[in-house]
Amino acid sequence: MTTLQQIPESLQWNGESLKILDQTKLPTEIYYFDATTLLDVREAIVKLQVRGAPAIGLAAAYGLYLGVRELETEKIDEFHQQARVLANELISARPTAVNLAWAVERLIESSKEAVTVSEAKLIIMEEAIKLHLADEATCKEIGENALTLLHDGAAILTHCNAGSIATSRYGTALAPLHLAKEIGWEISAYATETRPVFQGARLTSWELKQSGIPVTLLTDNMVGYLLQNKKVDAVIVGADRITANGDTANKIGTLQLAILANFYQIPFYVAAPLSTIDLSIESGNEIIIEQRDRTEVTHIGNVQIAPEGINVLNPAFDVTPNELITAIITEKGIVSSDYKETFKSWEQE
Amino acid sequence: MTTLQQIPESLQWNGESLKILDQTKLPTEIYYFDATTLLDVREAIVKLQVRGAPAIGLAAAYGLYLGVRELETEKIDEFHQQARVLANELISARPTAVNLAWAVERLIESSKEAVTVSEAKLIIMEEAIKLHLADEATCKEIGENALTLLHDGAAILTHCNAGSIATSRYGTALAPLHLAKEIGWEISAYATETRPVFQGARLTSWELKQSGIPVTLLTDNMVGYLLQNKKVDAVIVGADRITANGDTANKIGTLQLAILANFYQIPFYVAAPLSTIDLSIESGNEIIIEQRDRTEVTHIGNVQIAPEGINVLNPAFDVTPNELITAIITEKGIVSSDYKETFKSWEQE
Repeated sequence: MTTLQQIPESLQWNGESLKILDQTKLPTEIYYFDATTLLDVREAIVKLQVRGAPAIGLAAAYGLYLGVRELETEKIDEFHQQARVLANELISARPTAVNLAWAVERLIESSKEAVTVSEAKLIIMEEAIKLHLADEATCKEIGENALTLLHDGAAILTHCNAGSIATSRYGTALAPLHLAKEIGWEISAYATETRPVFQGARLTSWELKQSGIPVTLLTDNMVGYLLQNKKVDAVIVGADRITANGDTANKIGTLQLAILANFYQIPFYVAAPLSTIDLSIESGNEIIIEQRDRTEVTHIGNVQIAPEGINVLNPAFDVTPNELITAIITEKGIVSSDYKETFKSWEQE
Repeated sequence: MTTLQQIPESLQWNGESLKILDQTKLPTEIYYFDATTLLDVREAIVKLQVRGAPAIGLAAAYGLYLGVRELETEKIDEFHQQARVLANELISARPTAVNLAWAVERLIESSKEAVTVSEAKLIIMEEAIKLHLADEATCKEIGENALTLLHDGAAILTHCNAGSIATSRYGTALAPLHLAKEIGWEISAYATETRPVFQGARLTSWELKQSGIPVTLLTDNMVGYLLQNKKVDAVIVGADRITANGDTANKIGTLQLAILANFYQIPFYVAAPLSTIDLSIESGNEIIIEQRDRTEVTHIGNVQIAPEGINVLNPAFDVTPNELITAIITEKGIVSSDYKETFKSWEQE
């Protein structure tokens, strides 16, 4: 029996508009709003109302359709040019997560088969729906592969939210926990709160609680204490971009989790779909890290927690070098070395 | 020229009552309130209105005087018994920071010379004032010793607030920064925000900014990113209790900073007065870690950031093993190995 029914879906497509679960209002309110234009979707991505690399890829796919739907040209060449501009507008919303660009580019590519503009628009919508449906199956496969590395009774530490609401369903890092619950394992989780936007506190602890998975919340600076004093069997995180050599960009704080896990000799796993792997980039040094607004650090709601005008750092992501990663878990399998060779061989299949 | 004049003092004794800077209102408001009873002081310590190991030791010293002042007995034996009860009440306010117990015990011990109750009360007040004055000199010596490990242009990462307002003046970990500024060095700082109570965001970044020392604020999970990407010359933190073997209890998050500093081969220093060293305890395993209220993790002001009823961890401190500490800097000198022998030899001097 799946426990996922208790968790609202991140995205619902009704053929005309995209219902988006506003994740900034969680956990105190479950609120959906209708995105009817590309700009609605782009704004929702920028504001983190929809977040999680796979989910923003799917949102952007529907967003591209909402954008091209309004194009008035009947000339297919002009359509392609205008669609390209719209695609770039979506891709620029968040530069680090590669799934966004991957989804949008895939739709653009598919639309090139079309002879007429209306056919191109239809292809883009159908491809968006296909990606959406495929994502759930992909997440489930990631979860099944991840389960082979865990055991009944395991305690898992995770960071940010790579869960059901970060994807279409199941999640990536949280997929094995949802699946473990389904098969009756007693699995438990620790969730870091994940400053500055508290995705761990607001989303992961809520998502796992909804599913009946025992979860304990801790601040990001309690990880050392946790690993020193409690039994933790593995750390599992998601990813926003994985380069050819296995270096992984993920939510800020992931790098230091990997260092701490290594120090305490606990396996550190990255769970992500193949769409997160960017073979165009050799290593993590080339990844552009999105820097976000300073007020995310200085204010929490209406509470000011730092002096006026203070300098802040606010990188949204950091890069974990492959040496610190025990294995990368994908829908296709588990890789723990020779990342580039394996990724390339998968691409050629 | 000192830059400390811009920073309000943590405590002001006027002979009758203790003015306490309410640090929970910083950085948006500088507000002092009068503590006129032992319970006032105890409550201020519990609520973190006064915090920082040396400052809570000084506050408790005055608190003990405010308590014994009200004792009505004229019999010195009865006085000692009742003073002991009051001392225990203060010591229980925060179990981890040893300076609190150290200061209170020192006053209790001094009062034993007294022949009359009024003499005992006078001794306790005088000893509290002596401790208060001595703390500023101690902090300055710690700062001077720490400066020998740094250089003009250094960038320092610190955690929590071991600054001027955590002591009588200068601070411990921040003393070298204040002194560096006085001698014209271009020194700069990174401050971790220090969840859950944000002492880094609210206090350290404010204190250093007041002193004109360039400071950049980061969330606790950005330390890996910082050390991977920016020049940081040393990490300096304070301490709440140092055991005979050099293991150090300090604000939650210190342990993982030490692990990260070691990973990136950056020196990790603990700066603390001798009163923080507890030779009655062999190693950090024996330190009692204060667990604080869950709402510190789940709420920030009126903002709820986690689901109702979620399990949380909230240890106020963690223990850094001596192997991860490059050196401990005290007013008496710098120790980097053979902690127990050195500490014991100092005690015998």
